[in-house]
Amino acid sequence: MLHFESDYMEGCHPLILKKLEEINFEKNVGYGADRYCARAAEKIKVACGKPDAIVHFMIGGTNTNSTIIRSILRPSFGVLSADSAHIAFHEAGAVEATGHKVLTIPHKDGKITAEQAETYIRLFYEDENWEHEVRPGMVYISHPTEYGTLYTRQELHDLHEVCRKHHLPLFIDGARLGYGLAAYDTDVTLKDLADNCDVFYIGGTKVGALLGEAVVFTDPSLAQDFFTIRKMSGGVLAKGWLIGVQFDVLFTDDNYLKIAKNAIDTAMTIRKGLTEKGLKLYLGSPTNQQFFTMEDQEVKRIAEFAGYGFMNKLDDTHSVIRFCTSWATRMEDAEALVAHF
Amino acid sequence: MLHFESDYMEGCHPLILKKLEEINFEKNVGYGADRYCARAAEKIKVACGKPDAIVHFMIGGTNTNSTIIRSILRPSFGVLSADSAHIAFHEAGAVEATGHKVLTIPHKDGKITAEQAETYIRLFYEDENWEHEVRPGMVYISHPTEYGTLYTRQELHDLHEVCRKHHLPLFIDGARLGYGLAAYDTDVTLKDLADNCDVFYIGGTKVGALLGEAVVFTDPSLAQDFFTIRKMSGGVLAKGWLIGVQFDVLFTDDNYLKIAKNAIDTAMTIRKGLTEKGLKLYLGSPTNQQFFTMEDQEVKRIAEFAGYGFMNKLDDTHSVIRFCTSWATRMEDAEALVAHF
Amino acid sequence: MLHFESDYMEGCHPLILKKLEEINFEKNVGYGADRYCARAAEKIKVACGKPDAIVHFMIGGTNTNSTIIRSILRPSFGVLSADSAHIAFHEAGAVEATGHKVLTIPHKDGKITAEQAETYIRLFYEDENWEHEVRPGMVYISHPTEYGTLYTRQELHDLHEVCRKHHLPLFIDGARLGYGLAAYDTDVTLKDLADNCDVFYIGGTKVGALLGEAVVFTDPSLAQDFFTIRKMSGGVLAKGWLIGVQFDVLFTDDNYLKIAKNAIDTAMTIRKGLTEKGLKLYLGSPTNQQFFTMEDQEVKRIAEFAGYGFMNKLDDTHSVIRFCTSWATRMEDAEALVAHF
Amino acid sequence: MLHFESDYMEGCHPLILKKLEEINFEKNVGYGADRYCARAAEKIKVACGKPDAIVHFMIGGTNTNSTIIRSILRPSFGVLSADSAHIAFHEAGAVEATGHKVLTIPHKDGKITAEQAETYIRLFYEDENWEHEVRPGMVYISHPTEYGTLYTRQELHDLHEVCRKHHLPLFIDGARLGYGLAAYDTDVTLKDLADNCDVFYIGGTKVGALLGEAVVFTDPSLAQDFFTIRKMSGGVLAKGWLIGVQFDVLFTDDNYLKIAKNAIDTAMTIRKGLTEKGLKLYLGSPTNQQFFTMEDQEVKRIAEFAGYGFMNKLDDTHSVIRFCTSWATRMEDAEALVAHF
Repeated sequence: MLHFESDYMEGCHPLILKKLEEINFEKNVGYGADRYCARAAEKIKVACGKPDAIVHFMIGGTNTNSTIIRSILRPSFGVLSADSAHIAFHEAGAVEATGHKVLTIPHKDGKITAEQAETYIRLFYEDENWEHEVRPGMVYISHPTEYGTLYTRQELHDLHEVCRKHHLPLFIDGARLGYGLAAYDTDVTLKDLADNCDVFYIGGTKVGALLGEAVVFTDPSLAQDFFTIRKMSGGVLAKGWLIGVQFDVLFTDDNYLKIAKNAIDTAMTIRKGLTEKGLKLYLGSPTNQQFFTMEDQEVKRIAEFAGYGFMNKLDDTHSVIRFCTSWATRMEDAEALVAHF
Repeated sequence: MLHFESDYMEGCHPLILKKLEEINFEKNVGYGADRYCARAAEKIKVACGKPDAIVHFMIGGTNTNSTIIRSILRPSFGVLSADSAHIAFHEAGAVEATGHKVLTIPHKDGKITAEQAETYIRLFYEDENWEHEVRPGMVYISHPTEYGTLYTRQELHDLHEVCRKHHLPLFIDGARLGYGLAAYDTDVTLKDLADNCDVFYIGGTKVGALLGEAVVFTDPSLAQDFFTIRKMSGGVLAKGWLIGVQFDVLFTDDNYLKIAKNAIDTAMTIRKGLTEKGLKLYLGSPTNQQFFTMEDQEVKRIAEFAGYGFMNKLDDTHSVIRFCTSWATRMEDAEALVAHF
Repeated sequence: MLHFESDYMEGCHPLILKKLEEINFEKNVGYGADRYCARAAEKIKVACGKPDAIVHFMIGGTNTNSTIIRSILRPSFGVLSADSAHIAFHEAGAVEATGHKVLTIPHKDGKITAEQAETYIRLFYEDENWEHEVRPGMVYISHPTEYGTLYTRQELHDLHEVCRKHHLPLFIDGARLGYGLAAYDTDVTLKDLADNCDVFYIGGTKVGALLGEAVVFTDPSLAQDFFTIRKMSGGVLAKGWLIGVQFDVLFTDDNYLKIAKNAIDTAMTIRKGLTEKGLKLYLGSPTNQQFFTMEDQEVKRIAEFAGYGFMNKLDDTHSVIRFCTSWATRMEDAEALVAHF
Repeated sequence: MLHFESDYMEGCHPLILKKLEEINFEKNVGYGADRYCARAAEKIKVACGKPDAIVHFMIGGTNTNSTIIRSILRPSFGVLSADSAHIAFHEAGAVEATGHKVLTIPHKDGKITAEQAETYIRLFYEDENWEHEVRPGMVYISHPTEYGTLYTRQELHDLHEVCRKHHLPLFIDGARLGYGLAAYDTDVTLKDLADNCDVFYIGGTKVGALLGEAVVFTDPSLAQDFFTIRKMSGGVLAKGWLIGVQFDVLFTDDNYLKIAKNAIDTAMTIRKGLTEKGLKLYLGSPTNQQFFTMEDQEVKRIAEFAGYGFMNKLDDTHSVIRFCTSWATRMEDAEALVAHF
């Protein structure tokens, strides 16, 4: 059986596992005040070109998203995002549970544009009842998006400009950031990302770590009280060093990008192989998630030899499914998948 | 330098680390739907003598506490606890952040009694304004308590009886449960605990695991919607199997108790050694946390050779400090600590 | 200047004002425990044909909506409503502020159908990730809707059947209920409404009272803890009798309906008059809100002689505006408005 | 039967009732944007000597308290108050329902001192775990307090100085403010109060109005987004003018103070009369609430001729009860009460 269900099926990169073994009996202080977290934070700031950034290590995506959002928004403000965003659908109402509405804009291939944001904000203030409505207090995007697509540097820049103009922090969910940075044709580097937002995170859970996300406040003023808000929100690990040490490894010798590249290579093999065999891409993703439109009969057949992610029904006889690779996917498995068609 | 700051300074038990290495490249489905979680849950139910219990694997104590509490309480209800409870002071308002008040009773050595709970509830309903006040909707205790003390089986039974009489679920925080069960003189077994509450958890983070807490709903009706509430609250790990596999190891061959015993042995060595040398116990704890009353001058001197936990000032010249052992504390370190006095 | 901006511009019906004067120096106990609240509740239960209903008197619409919703939903549940619903747009995120998501269905003339609800629920549970998503825990509609339209008895019945089938309470916002009941062609009586939902409220603020809404739990089991949840949510008036006495008047001698009828008569005069003069209805509302599509030039001209509600832009040169009547609108004003065209 | 249960048993001052009749059919715009609210706000700013203050009209005490608190606090902050404070006990957890903890200090006659606040804050930051705890983000007091006592100008000044030093806004709950200002011996004027806090409110519900509280942000920077937060929190009346017009009357010709004086006169008559007859004051309150310590037998006897407020049991045979007067209490009733002893 082949497995392309998700990018969080395996453990962690062997370099990380080795390090965890090495330091298993070291005695480190709790809650992220240890030297590994400090060292990893320094390396991340260097990699981002942001010496003044503030870095926090958190546990997983849903918690990281809602904690950052609640820490930034005033009580009656909401977060503006694509209607396809993870925070809008797949997080069980975590943002609403902190008291804030997710305000949505129709996505295009998982993305929203600077123009859409500008228009939303303009129409909001043109509505004479705006004081009776939830006000956009920040903008959320993910890179890569829910559909594996990427923003260009120009698109990020334009969106950030609109946000700055309206004093709305731009927050980028980078749960799969490594796979975005490692994509073949992207013009967005980690530094570009850091330059074009106010806070973002570098996903570890899906990119080589056992667990963990590194939050980077490129605008340090947004990080006020953040440790306590994290603690309150369940986003502080007693053994905080457990995440720090993993990011220390990932941000040594460019490991984060190197590790991520395998997911792109295997995903592109699947994409090329399956499209050559006549399968129809649902949309063109340059990252580790590949979406195909298929007849339901075909979907059933695939279930016999490969795990995949079921996305949604398109019509009575067709569905969209996803093949997902990771830093750990073997090229032979990608080729085996192609060979099945 | 010796380290007795806390019981979450080291990684995990070697048996767990070995297992994590073994399965590192296995492909497991996400969110706790994997076979390790299933197997660990079965073992835990057997160990508790509760075939109908529902088991969930969560990440850390603060998040586990507030998620369980929010899942049980009606909107205007509060949770009754000792004023020394972790949820009352050290969780950054995590319970309040879910909209609920922590209602406190003065603790005695970290514990509350059945009589205190009964009195609180009686006085609450005798107050003719009770409908204007926060109503106790559940009771929270921890075992061991914040001060390392333990309930007796009879005390647990009596408290649970009061709770049952008033239809209040009793929730036991077992972040250090292993150290409670492994104490020399306790008459409370895991089965006793399971018999005398409605929901509790078995701490992994502090007792041999890298991270993780196993929540056991002995009253399965309380577990309704719990997965989604966990997800919403940031208490679901994408790689859920990471916690499952650790509890699978811990609940094989009685490892959980065996591992915990070391913390008791080393703590008792410290207790005996230091009291023999004339140090004054703040209170008598049978578990892995030992509290001493000291002159501040002495405290300063200790800081030169050993890490400890600072608890609180007693008066202008005395403080309470804590020495904390764990499954990983070496007996030679405990002896070295004693030798310093 | 004529005024058709809203239905909350005037004070209260003279019968109410007279009663308030009469009892001004009476001494009544607080928080709704007075005899007026008791009497009004009895009259309302009789009028609804629901002897077992539980009645609460609240202050205003937004607070009533979010308080009822928070009192019913489990923590991770959301409320299903039309995307045009008041709770979805015009209440400043009051529902989200209680921790719950508003799940929306595209409205048709402000309404949603039983089929839409059924489909939403079916698709929700068919999605294998449903446990990661906000679950519909109740259904909210308003009668009349945001667009002044009305459900038929059959539509209410069908929707309630779907709700019952899925164990979702149906909540009807009746902020303008009087105007719905007094519409010329409706087949929905107060008893029908009470028969076809689980909780609803009878609007006072917009229908003859100074302020106040009468909440009717036709399913008494939903009213558990409701007084305390109201108190916590700011929905309890110290002088609770102030609302009770107003509903006592409104539910004496069928005053509620009699008073409401004037709004319909004047609204129909406007509707007939303006359509005869060639103005274009945006949609056909049988109640006190009449919506017209107009050129923006025309809208500007109107602003010189009449207040109206601006709804939204339709395109670059057209807008939708609303003329709103009330129990207090004078027929001569309605006629004067028509005469202006 | 005599009635001294509370100060919210009667309607409103006849001057207000007369005004409400006069303008009953006027057409005023909604949500507080009307001319009465504007006029009342101006008069209040003049009376406070604060031309730059921002004034909002809200509905009742509990909602006003929690809305102001939630609008000021960062997510992980709490509000510091006396343990006897209304927000700590009698508001059904309204503050916690907005996600914030009420941090308490032991009261002395209902009050807290500058020293207590200073000590609390100092100890908080001295605790090396403070980032794991709820941080005091503002201070709440009421004037008069729950026990009818008053701060002196010096006490307010000192407390405000401590607050300013630590950048904590000081919020004064003035639900009974009129009775504080009208007390015979107080040295605190409305201007003093406004000078010594950052936000406070002037109670209407208990001092002559049907309902309503006037919130005054003497620090205008705290009022950001306040209208929307009020709306979200259920603290906006559609007929906002209803509260504005009442405060317009109350702040004309010094009515607010004149009206309040009657409550003091009658309360002092009761105090003098009953103490002369040998009854024992529980504490010395200079305002409209008078507390007596009594044998339970005596309490029972009183219930036959007079309503009172039951406060609490003192011991097995004694209780504390309250006699409460208001702007509407007749002197003959106060005298009749005394005559009964």
